[in-house]
Amino acid sequence: MDEEKLIEQLNKGEIKLHEVEDIVNDSGAATEIRRKYLEKKYGMKLEHVSKSSIDFADSINRNIENPVGTIQVPLGCAGEVKINGVNANGLYPILLATTEGRLVAGMSRGINVFNAAGGVNTTIIKDGITRSLILRTKGAKDAVKLIRWVESEEGFNFLSEAFSKSTKHGKLKEIKCYTPGRDVFLRFKAFTGAAMGMNMVTIAAEAAVEELIDKIKEFGIDAVLISESGNMCTDKKPAYINILEGRGVSLIADALIPREVVEREFRVTPEAVAELNKTKNLQGSALAGSHGFNAHVANVLAAMYIAHGQDVAQIVEGAQAMTDVAVVDGDMYVSLFLPSVEVGTFGGGTKRETQQEVLRLLGLYGENDTEGITRLTFAEIVAAACLVSEINLLAIQSAKELAKSHYKLRRG
Amino acid sequence: MDEEKLIEQLNKGEIKLHEVEDIVNDSGAATEIRRKYLEKKYGMKLEHVSKSSIDFADSINRNIENPVGTIQVPLGCAGEVKINGVNANGLYPILLATTEGRLVAGMSRGINVFNAAGGVNTTIIKDGITRSLILRTKGAKDAVKLIRWVESEEGFNFLSEAFSKSTKHGKLKEIKCYTPGRDVFLRFKAFTGAAMGMNMVTIAAEAAVEELIDKIKEFGIDAVLISESGNMCTDKKPAYINILEGRGVSLIADALIPREVVEREFRVTPEAVAELNKTKNLQGSALAGSHGFNAHVANVLAAMYIAHGQDVAQIVEGAQAMTDVAVVDGDMYVSLFLPSVEVGTFGGGTKRETQQEVLRLLGLYGENDTEGITRLTFAEIVAAACLVSEINLLAIQSAKELAKSHYKLRRG
Amino acid sequence: MDEEKLIEQLNKGEIKLHEVEDIVNDSGAATEIRRKYLEKKYGMKLEHVSKSSIDFADSINRNIENPVGTIQVPLGCAGEVKINGVNANGLYPILLATTEGRLVAGMSRGINVFNAAGGVNTTIIKDGITRSLILRTKGAKDAVKLIRWVESEEGFNFLSEAFSKSTKHGKLKEIKCYTPGRDVFLRFKAFTGAAMGMNMVTIAAEAAVEELIDKIKEFGIDAVLISESGNMCTDKKPAYINILEGRGVSLIADALIPREVVEREFRVTPEAVAELNKTKNLQGSALAGSHGFNAHVANVLAAMYIAHGQDVAQIVEGAQAMTDVAVVDGDMYVSLFLPSVEVGTFGGGTKRETQQEVLRLLGLYGENDTEGITRLTFAEIVAAACLVSEINLLAIQSAKELAKSHYKLRRG
Amino acid sequence: MDEEKLIEQLNKGEIKLHEVEDIVNDSGAATEIRRKYLEKKYGMKLEHVSKSSIDFADSINRNIENPVGTIQVPLGCAGEVKINGVNANGLYPILLATTEGRLVAGMSRGINVFNAAGGVNTTIIKDGITRSLILRTKGAKDAVKLIRWVESEEGFNFLSEAFSKSTKHGKLKEIKCYTPGRDVFLRFKAFTGAAMGMNMVTIAAEAAVEELIDKIKEFGIDAVLISESGNMCTDKKPAYINILEGRGVSLIADALIPREVVEREFRVTPEAVAELNKTKNLQGSALAGSHGFNAHVANVLAAMYIAHGQDVAQIVEGAQAMTDVAVVDGDMYVSLFLPSVEVGTFGGGTKRETQQEVLRLLGLYGENDTEGITRLTFAEIVAAACLVSEINLLAIQSAKELAKSHYKLRRG
Repeated sequence: MDEEKLIEQLNKGEIKLHEVEDIVNDSGAATEIRRKYLEKKYGMKLEHVSKSSIDFADSINRNIENPVGTIQVPLGCAGEVKINGVNANGLYPILLATTEGRLVAGMSRGINVFNAAGGVNTTIIKDGITRSLILRTKGAKDAVKLIRWVESEEGFNFLSEAFSKSTKHGKLKEIKCYTPGRDVFLRFKAFTGAAMGMNMVTIAAEAAVEELIDKIKEFGIDAVLISESGNMCTDKKPAYINILEGRGVSLIADALIPREVVEREFRVTPEAVAELNKTKNLQGSALAGSHGFNAHVANVLAAMYIAHGQDVAQIVEGAQAMTDVAVVDGDMYVSLFLPSVEVGTFGGGTKRETQQEVLRLLGLYGENDTEGITRLTFAEIVAAACLVSEINLLAIQSAKELAKSHYKLRRG
Repeated sequence: MDEEKLIEQLNKGEIKLHEVEDIVNDSGAATEIRRKYLEKKYGMKLEHVSKSSIDFADSINRNIENPVGTIQVPLGCAGEVKINGVNANGLYPILLATTEGRLVAGMSRGINVFNAAGGVNTTIIKDGITRSLILRTKGAKDAVKLIRWVESEEGFNFLSEAFSKSTKHGKLKEIKCYTPGRDVFLRFKAFTGAAMGMNMVTIAAEAAVEELIDKIKEFGIDAVLISESGNMCTDKKPAYINILEGRGVSLIADALIPREVVEREFRVTPEAVAELNKTKNLQGSALAGSHGFNAHVANVLAAMYIAHGQDVAQIVEGAQAMTDVAVVDGDMYVSLFLPSVEVGTFGGGTKRETQQEVLRLLGLYGENDTEGITRLTFAEIVAAACLVSEINLLAIQSAKELAKSHYKLRRG
Repeated sequence: MDEEKLIEQLNKGEIKLHEVEDIVNDSGAATEIRRKYLEKKYGMKLEHVSKSSIDFADSINRNIENPVGTIQVPLGCAGEVKINGVNANGLYPILLATTEGRLVAGMSRGINVFNAAGGVNTTIIKDGITRSLILRTKGAKDAVKLIRWVESEEGFNFLSEAFSKSTKHGKLKEIKCYTPGRDVFLRFKAFTGAAMGMNMVTIAAEAAVEELIDKIKEFGIDAVLISESGNMCTDKKPAYINILEGRGVSLIADALIPREVVEREFRVTPEAVAELNKTKNLQGSALAGSHGFNAHVANVLAAMYIAHGQDVAQIVEGAQAMTDVAVVDGDMYVSLFLPSVEVGTFGGGTKRETQQEVLRLLGLYGENDTEGITRLTFAEIVAAACLVSEINLLAIQSAKELAKSHYKLRRG
Repeated sequence: MDEEKLIEQLNKGEIKLHEVEDIVNDSGAATEIRRKYLEKKYGMKLEHVSKSSIDFADSINRNIENPVGTIQVPLGCAGEVKINGVNANGLYPILLATTEGRLVAGMSRGINVFNAAGGVNTTIIKDGITRSLILRTKGAKDAVKLIRWVESEEGFNFLSEAFSKSTKHGKLKEIKCYTPGRDVFLRFKAFTGAAMGMNMVTIAAEAAVEELIDKIKEFGIDAVLISESGNMCTDKKPAYINILEGRGVSLIADALIPREVVEREFRVTPEAVAELNKTKNLQGSALAGSHGFNAHVANVLAAMYIAHGQDVAQIVEGAQAMTDVAVVDGDMYVSLFLPSVEVGTFGGGTKRETQQEVLRLLGLYGENDTEGITRLTFAEIVAAACLVSEINLLAIQSAKELAKSHYKLRRG
């Protein structure tokens, strides 16, 4: 039989994992063959991994190569949070894909408190995905001359037009240039509709830069492209540039929780939570040399990014968030600044079956959304959920319950 | 019928999502009821989300609350990488759960090159998960007095013994203290067997600190516990303390790739890759104010952490890695320093069905591994995979192929 | 006698040090009385401290209170460096006030090499001193609304006009706003003529913000001024915002040194210096969590700032510089990026006798220079000197001579 | 005449500035000749620069090369601050060499308040100057093997003994190793008596490392010294490693100021100062990507370092300080954490005439102080002065008086 033979050939190294695709010309069958090869080689059944409702033919064009099956992550619903935002207005269910016990439960508890206080406000500061390319010139004089032109109105218009040739929905919003000497890091920032937009901006920025290289010869500047990504983007690494300049959606969630709600629901005072926030999230983080002045924003981002088909590695820059808690006229003002929520509601992982269903449940699957409203709405929901979870955790810790609550759950 | 009635009650807000559990006393049924409630409320079927082979009864005790179904993430196999490590020795399959196109393919290509060069070396520098608690004293004199005792042999023995009372496998390795004034941040570092160990160290450290508070009264020091986690841990936030002190497994993957292999397989020179690494990963990251001196370590961490049941939010500190490329006698020396690979092969998400199968495939599911060998082995595999993917991407970018390869794949 | 009586009164605490001024109504005499009081109290003569040619009457109006004498710092001349810059063109003497042995000698050696290679190129990227004020609003919605208006053309024009009312030479160039929640940090950037300009920008920005507070009431926003300086300026603290946005003069010094000059003068290869720069200034600094990707820029800044009457504390942000060394067609390309050279050629310490003479020697004392040309020229000289000293030190270290050269000097 | 001839030769470039020394064989005369050469060349008298009581013969052996004269910096006395410290106990005069108006006056005001509250407490956390050298090995396995030995008791003893051969007073306290791959950064920390100790530690560490290179050949490790200073020291660059590990003296100054003293003297409430400190020094600095969580510590360090003959460039790491203000039972608790006060009371600039007098006035000139008590005492005085100035400035800013006080002073 064909399947057995292919498994044998894989085993002997006569063919490679990715070649199965071309041989059987059926992605589902190829997936099975590769999995069976692993099963045989390692002498065990991948029973659960084999269960899947993923369309692998579609997946291999956009999401995965050499598929062998599926990983299942439990999905929980923490309830519906009330949001008073720019695009998000009303009640939104918070769905989290996680294996971290108490994350959903904590969110649930927090949602009750925030809803009792009138909900979470969300405000968008900026929007735009970025990519930084590196152009090498002969020296700083040329580098700065290049920067001056690129940052001029003429330069921006030139690059904006060049950028638009490679993308239908993408639109260049800004270019900022940095140079430590002869190399110029050009940070392109673009609007990308419903998509998170990394591929879009990469392709369009590189095309634009190729036109730029020709153009600046007119001014006597010779430049060569050193890299399509110079780490000043900054994608999937923590970086201060994202805090100051933003990447993806930069936004704030905040709320004023009446003292009596805080005391009744969280069983702490606003003063205690404010004090913990200062000592832990500001001073502790400062001493640790941290970019993240928060308690656990990354937990919420990870669970929401997995559930909604986002690029999970982007929680790295997302985690650079700042939580504030202040006592205002006796009540508790809380806010969370998230400079880099890079999300999309179309393209990438949002196409996958379960992830798409979750987005559709929220009414936010972004097909045909050239304005990016679904994307911005989703970013606001993410921000609201992060704030709720932050404040709940701080309130628990203020009440010195963290380890104990874990303890009981696991051992009791 | 019961189900319909419960859905109705959920809809009216008469019962809460988590109460379904207690009412039906069957986690699978409760999951279905909650999902159906969402389906009814939002007028759509969660067809794919409903497909699952997860044991929700077990899950709600450790991984999730209010489950409503499952998120499926495609799992790909990039081939087997040869590792010459401390605990990892031989060929190990690299399995990635991702929706990022080209990640598996790039890893595959890289594996071929590294295997052709003899494989990846991995070396462990340190091991130990950390938790920092905050004790507040009356002032700096007491704070420093407290620190001196805690950091003395007597103090360490006292805390070590107290720590051991709350954990069977955990073992205190080190305590470091920091203070900006009256507050002392005690950073406990512990060995935690096969488990990643965050809960273990949190519980044991808090218990130890409670004994400490009593003990130091003898020296006239009054201290109160301000927080079980003072952000100097540092968990799920980028932080320099993890780079300098390590968190989880700190390790290095490196290799020497002969020039002819580099030129034949990557179609670039070692010099070009070294130059790109310097300009992008060192200078670009430095200018951006980044802690991550690498190209895309977070991508690999995210895909491996999801596939193997890890705490995904911990890619945040994992991404603080440093890639080096140097030309040594004409050949290409490459290394990757990963100060914070916080992984476990038992407990947490490793218990889930698909994730456990993937760990078992590697022979690394950690039940009964009190020595933590499976955990350390897995960390070495993670490090090797990250290095392979890093160097492959740098080689591609050196050859200016990044955007183009994406372009062709998506549009061509 | 009066003097004796005053000393006695000071000794008994009947009058305070600053009151002597008003009583004797002669700053020179008051200085002497205070010094004699110290001498008497501590039983020793301040023989050298008493020697001075400072006009204390002028000094107490701008530079010092309660003067008791003078500190003398040795001033050395390292020779004249050739600069090909924007405003600096030709040979400029490098004068350093320091007690750090070998600093002048090293600079001398470096100057010879750079001059042999045709001199140092300097290029200005940006110019403008900054001050960030904090306005507190009711919440993020108001904060972002405020930001949108301030960053609009209308908002900028309003603030620019308001700013100009308080200063003759200062001119607002840019305002950038940042917010983590309800507080808005408004970072004013201004041109300040020949002056470094901190006081100018502080006064004018505060006045402008007071008008702003009134104006935005029209849009329904209530805001209060929380601080005249919100640490996002950032003055006298290391901060990434200065690297990315610049503060004072942001500029680059670079040069291409022929291989034969490098080998003959420094007795090392360009490759060795480039390798050291990468390992030490990039990787070492990165691992240390440093903002300063250089060897010892602070040494040169300190010595030049003291010699030329600058605000010495501003070497803190000045030290955030990045040195690059690259081999280009066999020759050695070197550059130094200095994002924050905050200098002035008029006002502050430049008024003092010796400092003013040094500036006048350079032809750069800034009286009547409303265009700030003297200030920019001086910044270019500083940058050139820093580059020269950096490269000389790297060359020495490459040749493993650092400690030895110190050793011989001190003990030999 | 000889002098004229030499000036002529200097002018023609026939001799170099440093050669004058050898020719005239009299440092004072050589200084004059060089100055006259500058005067002639630039057509102006350096009248004030020529006034000096510096012994140039002694200076050129330790502090300066090519001297041409002297810079005079005004020295002010802010009064005497009461310190309750480890080595510092009693009243100490605070002497500042500065041209920054209001610095002395602000300190004076602050001293009155702190003295009224019982003085400043100072507490030393750690002490030890550091130098990091770089050893290059073949790869990470060797690097980690090397680290294990160096950090073992045997390794430490070996290096400690080797270290001691090059220094009489220096004593190795600790070695920490870091590696990103094949390079090992060995951070030596040493006690250096009364001296700041940079040269001492550099010489002794390099000698020790040379012995180490031989020794580890026994274990099959080949290593070469790449740099005597690998920037993980970290000297004269801002760096997190100094915050976490300390450099020089790490210490804290704190005090509890009764509410009535705060309200009477500063005319603000403790709550207002605490709120400003949080918003400005914690949040503002965090957003700016700053390592300095303080208001203006660098100002005080600069003025004290110049006055007392310190290495002024070391204010860069000194400025990485954290100020705290908290309301405790209605009173105002204030603290300042200074991780890197690198000072000396013997050697370097302390030998110079005026600087030495100032140290002698304090009774802290360190000749014969092999225990380093004078140095530690001076560090405590520096810390106390910094705290006083910090709190005074915060109180002024809380009262919204900063710009106004400047304004009145300058224009009124």
